[in-house]
Amino acid sequence: MSDSPLGIGIDFGGTTVKIAVVYQSHIIDQAPPITTLDFQGPDDLIDAMVRTVEDLRARHEGIASIGVGMPGLVNFEKGLVYGLTNVPGWEAVPLRRLLEAKIGLPVAVDNDANCMAFAEWRCGAGRGFQNVVFMSLGTGVGGAIIANGQMIRGMRHGAGEIGQTSIDYQGRTGHYGNHGALEDYVGNNEITARAREAYTAAGIKKPLEECSPAALAAAAHHGDKIAFAQWDLVGQMLATAAMNCCWLLNPEAIVIGGGVARAGELLFHPFREHLLAQLSGPFKDGLMILPAAFGHEAGIIGASALAREHAVGARQLV
Amino acid sequence: MSDSPLGIGIDFGGTTVKIAVVYQSHIIDQAPPITTLDFQGPDDLIDAMVRTVEDLRARHEGIASIGVGMPGLVNFEKGLVYGLTNVPGWEAVPLRRLLEAKIGLPVAVDNDANCMAFAEWRCGAGRGFQNVVFMSLGTGVGGAIIANGQMIRGMRHGAGEIGQTSIDYQGRTGHYGNHGALEDYVGNNEITARAREAYTAAGIKKPLEECSPAALAAAAHHGDKIAFAQWDLVGQMLATAAMNCCWLLNPEAIVIGGGVARAGELLFHPFREHLLAQLSGPFKDGLMILPAAFGHEAGIIGASALAREHAVGARQLV
Repeated sequence: MSDSPLGIGIDFGGTTVKIAVVYQSHIIDQAPPITTLDFQGPDDLIDAMVRTVEDLRARHEGIASIGVGMPGLVNFEKGLVYGLTNVPGWEAVPLRRLLEAKIGLPVAVDNDANCMAFAEWRCGAGRGFQNVVFMSLGTGVGGAIIANGQMIRGMRHGAGEIGQTSIDYQGRTGHYGNHGALEDYVGNNEITARAREAYTAAGIKKPLEECSPAALAAAAHHGDKIAFAQWDLVGQMLATAAMNCCWLLNPEAIVIGGGVARAGELLFHPFREHLLAQLSGPFKDGLMILPAAFGHEAGIIGASALAREHAVGARQLV
Repeated sequence: MSDSPLGIGIDFGGTTVKIAVVYQSHIIDQAPPITTLDFQGPDDLIDAMVRTVEDLRARHEGIASIGVGMPGLVNFEKGLVYGLTNVPGWEAVPLRRLLEAKIGLPVAVDNDANCMAFAEWRCGAGRGFQNVVFMSLGTGVGGAIIANGQMIRGMRHGAGEIGQTSIDYQGRTGHYGNHGALEDYVGNNEITARAREAYTAAGIKKPLEECSPAALAAAAHHGDKIAFAQWDLVGQMLATAAMNCCWLLNPEAIVIGGGVARAGELLFHPFREHLLAQLSGPFKDGLMILPAAFGHEAGIIGASALAREHAVGARQLV
């Protein structure tokens, strides 16, 4: 582990690459974002990332490591990006090696959901626990698993895909042929579409934008019973996937982040009720159900924390 | 780890306690079983176990450790039995400490499903893998999880309860209030009851004993299409729970044991088809789907292997 509390965190997204200086778990300086699709392929984009990193290093002394969260499958041990879901041209890119050669600092590269979970585990809501299930709720549903005090990775670094687990073996067929995938029930768009159906069934016509999770939360706070019932249903569906994680992993904590989680108790209350009603004592007694401590900044903070803990050691393996 | 390849494995069951000398992964001498319910409570039964162990030690030199698999919740680190499902009077019994005091050898105590999984992981079908999901199919459905090269235990040592995970969020309510528990779909009795319903729906009257998994396997081998379809359904249900484990843990291997798994390819073929059709490349490429290498003896062999690896080290923690 590096002694310096100062590092750089990079959150590589489908539209922008955000780069910031992190002191412990606080962003203290953030560079203007790089627009991902302004660049032809990995080489040019990596050069732009390096220039931004050098700008930040010129302003801050003592930066000791760099962490990068990538939106796709990553081999963490090798720092190799296998491929990105929404950015073409990124196939088998040895990102850690390339960045280390150009910058001369130790670099760690991981999947973005793992980075967010790492931020929560090391500095946020899941701090101090040995077993944590992390869920991120948005357009997609992501996740990560800490068990026996370690991030669980699996044979091809794919572990933690909670959004693809099934809540109904006869449910609709998802993107990977999987029936009843959680993401197809509690993803942003699915919540919206189901709410509109519920309003329509009640004889109420609503445009789609008034059925979004944010709109549903506002409506429920104003006493809209249909909106309230929709949050109960989301809580129930989410609780089924979380319950499966509990029976399998017996975690101390479940940490939930992402835009949909901003509904707060509208979601957390039914989630807790449905979850605890389906677990026995050793699985529910002491179980912490927590909102994520970090928001959009989780990726940057987690990537930086991961680099502080792992980049120096990992580099020696190269 | 103990250098001696000779140990004692104890498989403590609801009806009998089986005690044997194990050489590597082979049972070389087994004592007459002790009838569990012949004894009033833990004290008398532990004394009977100690006598049997001493008989075996008198016949075999060099026994270095003792492993015990218990049918209930166990704190592995402390060797403490919290409680047993089907044996009254076993509450908060410090079994490791009691046995070590009476026998003078290092003892390891674990849950029976963990012992079976440990046998498969160290000496059987799951040997050499870092991430293994183990499922045991019988009247109940048990399991255990190896991830990052470690047995996953969880906050209260409850991890691995695959039989309680849900395959249908709206499914029937199970023992713990959980909806759609796998065990309530593919347990011995549930397979039997559903098969009888299928025969009845086809206008065929069958006594219950002709609908058991063993009878269904025999019928399917003789071309009975209803029996064949029942195995497909069991494979589909089981695949959903296994798929959830794959998305969450990305294991190299799934190992399936227990009486119901004796149906062989009648079960494994549809299981494989349903499972692989619901996973993406990094989750299914290279995934091994394997029948357990050990049968009834898995508990004894696993307990002994666990003791060889862990009892000596664990004892120093006391």
